[in-house]
Amino acid sequence: QDSSIPTVATNCVSCHSADGNPLVAGVPILSGQRATYLEAALRSYRDGRRTGGPADVMSTYAKELTDEDIKEIAEWFAAN
Amino acid sequence: QDSSIPTVATNCVSCHSADGNPLVAGVPILSGQRATYLEAALRSYRDGRRTGGPADVMSTYAKELTDEDIKEIAEWFAAN
Repeated sequence: QDSSIPTVATNCVSCHSADGNPLVAGVPILSGQRATYLEAALRSYRDGRRTGGPADVMSTYAKELTDEDIKEIAEWFAAN
Repeated sequence: QDSSIPTVATNCVSCHSADGNPLVAGVPILSGQRATYLEAALRSYRDGRRTGGPADVMSTYAKELTDEDIKEIAEWFAAN
């Protein structure tokens, strides 16, 4: 795997940090999470199955992502 | 904090394991996650802001929980 963050994951960084260990309060740690779960969560945000509060921010970003993008993002944070 | 799992967290264990490092495929790691995020996620499941697939299982359990229960569960897994 490439050692630099994938281009599709650049929107994630402002809240979750590039390595998935966020500095922003309340933001979940993605680092080391299972890729299969991260994929499922991102699809849920994209497809409107998570709503309210921060989910609305997540949905805005996730709506731009293909299944392939989501897989790439999930694998990046899971491996970090 | 008590060294044994809180009674209110016993339903979590079958999928997430007592220490939050699940053996079941696709189940997210809770161990070391931020308590504030775990609380927000459990309230979202309870209050119907996460739906579909595994969220329906989570909602069934979360509907039985008070805010205080949720806080206790979140702190348990965050600290493990």
